[in-house]
Amino acid sequence: VNSDQVGRTGSSDLLASLQSIVGGANVFSHDGIEERYCTDVLRKHSSRPAYVVRPADTQQVSAVVKVAADAGVTITALGGRTGVVGGGISPDGGLILSLERMTRVLEVDAASMTMTVEAGVPLQIAQESADAHGFILPLDLGARGSATIGGNIATNAGGVRVLRWGMARDMVLGLEAVLADGTVVSSLSKSLKDNAGYHWKDLLVGSEGTLGIITRAVLRLRPRPSSTQTALLALRSFEPVPELLRKLEGRFAGQLSSFELMWNDLYEFSSGARLQVRPRPLPAGSPLYVLIETLGSDAVRDLELFQTGLEEAQESGLIEDAVIAQSERDRTHFWDIRDDLSELFRPLFPLAAFDISLSLADMPAFVERTRAGILHEFPDSQLFYYGHAGDGNLHLIASLDRNDPEAESKVDMTVYSCVRALGGSISAEHGIGTAKREFIGFTRTPQELRLMRSIKQALDPRNILNPGKVLPDLQ
Amino acid sequence: VNSDQVGRTGSSDLLASLQSIVGGANVFSHDGIEERYCTDVLRKHSSRPAYVVRPADTQQVSAVVKVAADAGVTITALGGRTGVVGGGISPDGGLILSLERMTRVLEVDAASMTMTVEAGVPLQIAQESADAHGFILPLDLGARGSATIGGNIATNAGGVRVLRWGMARDMVLGLEAVLADGTVVSSLSKSLKDNAGYHWKDLLVGSEGTLGIITRAVLRLRPRPSSTQTALLALRSFEPVPELLRKLEGRFAGQLSSFELMWNDLYEFSSGARLQVRPRPLPAGSPLYVLIETLGSDAVRDLELFQTGLEEAQESGLIEDAVIAQSERDRTHFWDIRDDLSELFRPLFPLAAFDISLSLADMPAFVERTRAGILHEFPDSQLFYYGHAGDGNLHLIASLDRNDPEAESKVDMTVYSCVRALGGSISAEHGIGTAKREFIGFTRTPQELRLMRSIKQALDPRNILNPGKVLPDLQ
Repeated sequence: VNSDQVGRTGSSDLLASLQSIVGGANVFSHDGIEERYCTDVLRKHSSRPAYVVRPADTQQVSAVVKVAADAGVTITALGGRTGVVGGGISPDGGLILSLERMTRVLEVDAASMTMTVEAGVPLQIAQESADAHGFILPLDLGARGSATIGGNIATNAGGVRVLRWGMARDMVLGLEAVLADGTVVSSLSKSLKDNAGYHWKDLLVGSEGTLGIITRAVLRLRPRPSSTQTALLALRSFEPVPELLRKLEGRFAGQLSSFELMWNDLYEFSSGARLQVRPRPLPAGSPLYVLIETLGSDAVRDLELFQTGLEEAQESGLIEDAVIAQSERDRTHFWDIRDDLSELFRPLFPLAAFDISLSLADMPAFVERTRAGILHEFPDSQLFYYGHAGDGNLHLIASLDRNDPEAESKVDMTVYSCVRALGGSISAEHGIGTAKREFIGFTRTPQELRLMRSIKQALDPRNILNPGKVLPDLQ
Repeated sequence: VNSDQVGRTGSSDLLASLQSIVGGANVFSHDGIEERYCTDVLRKHSSRPAYVVRPADTQQVSAVVKVAADAGVTITALGGRTGVVGGGISPDGGLILSLERMTRVLEVDAASMTMTVEAGVPLQIAQESADAHGFILPLDLGARGSATIGGNIATNAGGVRVLRWGMARDMVLGLEAVLADGTVVSSLSKSLKDNAGYHWKDLLVGSEGTLGIITRAVLRLRPRPSSTQTALLALRSFEPVPELLRKLEGRFAGQLSSFELMWNDLYEFSSGARLQVRPRPLPAGSPLYVLIETLGSDAVRDLELFQTGLEEAQESGLIEDAVIAQSERDRTHFWDIRDDLSELFRPLFPLAAFDISLSLADMPAFVERTRAGILHEFPDSQLFYYGHAGDGNLHLIASLDRNDPEAESKVDMTVYSCVRALGGSISAEHGIGTAKREFIGFTRTPQELRLMRSIKQALDPRNILNPGKVLPDLQ
């Protein structure tokens, strides 16, 4: 689809149609489009969309999709613009369909322990609504303030509690979406179980706006935990990690919600940058640190169990040292060391950032091999490894000391070749977008890619929805 | 596809090909086919397949699919023959592909907390393998001895622990399957997170053998809980159920694994039938009973919490009476009342059996309306309502006192119309098969069905894989 050309040909008709659907105040075109619709949060990707449209409801989304598709103009759904792989960047000349006006929490149903929301609701607003009714929406991630539920679902967002509660997919009980021809498919079920026919809902989750545009969702809530226990652990090596995770997950039966790894490079760097505010909870220099958290219902009993579990782990030699957060202030400090990284990384630009998954046992090999490979190319690079190890998800940040696309692509190649050799995935939670498109074949087989293409072909034969994302040969 | 005719036309060629792929001892045809391949466990559905083939591995599955598809013969994958909706019944003249020889547990990986199995492994064997390594495979259901992992995944099986650990889908980390043209798609990942491209795995889960044949899977394991608490509760009405579930789920943070409802009809009938063996744990006659179970790691602490939680619930007036299992023998007795029903129901044949889901708050309306509707048609019918209420899943068994297809279809209509009116699903966990095919439109919209058809068309354009199942107009 050469949307640029087609878009211009019928542009005055299309513009009028769009205005009549959503009102003139909610259509922007060409030079009237603000910069924020053209670039992403990392400013790594940008383009020149021809239209930005802000529908107010599902029917308007459907009508916009119909007229844009008729005009041969591509449609890129946009949520909170927090994606890092270029998934929300429109092709030049395409239409950006922003869900920013669809921000209603439609219902919190205490009896069903569900909430029904429009796609544009920011995650944090949804979390706060759940909280106000005595529930927790367990999905949580750093970008909670801007990221929207629709974007979370379209990218199957992960975050820091996947170990216990799963990814966005696992919280979606019901879904409504608009397909490439404007058809509204809707199944706003509130129960955990529905085996009546194909699970199209699960196909749309994580499809990055290329198979349908998510407009509403029913999310599963849980009773809000009333007790939180947090600790930072130091380990002598990676080797005990699988056993430690197994032991703690068993010991804290059902309550272990986070198990976050930090290699010393990250711990030393991040805790060091905060020394003027707080001393380090544990001395730097151990090979590995683990931040763990349990969420329970009984502060006294939970703390007792937490202490017992950690003592047992220390006696078995699984951990070298441990410190338990004694206050909310401690807890915030521990989490900041792990989570609050973007400002710290800024002076190190340019950066290469990776988000891979692999089996826990393979993590040390990955760290060792990629460290050697990257330092070979960038001897002065600073490397930071950390991740949600309970889920097999590892993040790697590498400072590159010079802007050199060719060398950067060698770094990509080093990392993704290693992931391929270890049987992992090039994207644990960020998705593919355009940024990782060329590498999808590293951890997906040709047969899988053929299957994905036939699914795309069936649902969007004209390649109208967010073209160029996910699959390398559909641009 | 008129497979009967096509099958016979090229039958000697096809027979020879099949024999050369899997060996003569593993091909049966026409009159040489045993009865058990022709009918299902309830003996409600039966047919005359032309071939039964028992491949030994994925490559043989692929080769069988290729030659059968070339000959225009339909292929129905068969697991443990425990399905109740006719999903494993071949069309007349079709080929049954039985996974019964693919029963290897290929690996239990303690570091990744995963197991890799062939599709034909019975669930119970997989559970026992996990147990032998100190883990639990939380999927559990009455048919565990015969039902296979492949069948569990193909039907997205549920069972008695969905509340805490989810359905079969939630345990599948990696999957391998053979598509309609014999292509093997394989992604035997061991990590919880993989957002690289479309989640075809989640589309195949629950597709009842109509989109692909599952050959291997990587399943997520959890550390084996070491403490179990079980109680039977009596309630004065349904009304406090949502609050009770919420309170207990919160109080037993992360440990509540079962919350099973029994209306008095079932409790009185089932506990009464066992009176010669054990007295009733609680007197019959309360409107509603709830069987709850928590799985934890610390018998003393867990029992204390369990008692406290139940006392609180009783003080708040949520429960009328409660009895905690004091021994493994008690526990088995409690569970038998809920679970061990098939022999008890036998004298009541013919039966109509339903497996619906709806939001918890709508359950009393469903019970009241369907009871009235069925008793109107069958005044002497015995009705039994029970279910996994934590998941919105309700089972209904109705004795019909006469074999009368027309009256039976009125009962279907009564039940499914009520589910439709309440916005539920006609199948919570059993699937659609052929038995519920005509009713799928009761709780799926025309738009959803069109989407499902286009997915089927893309993956199996010749309708070779298990035709006649799921979708009403693809027979």
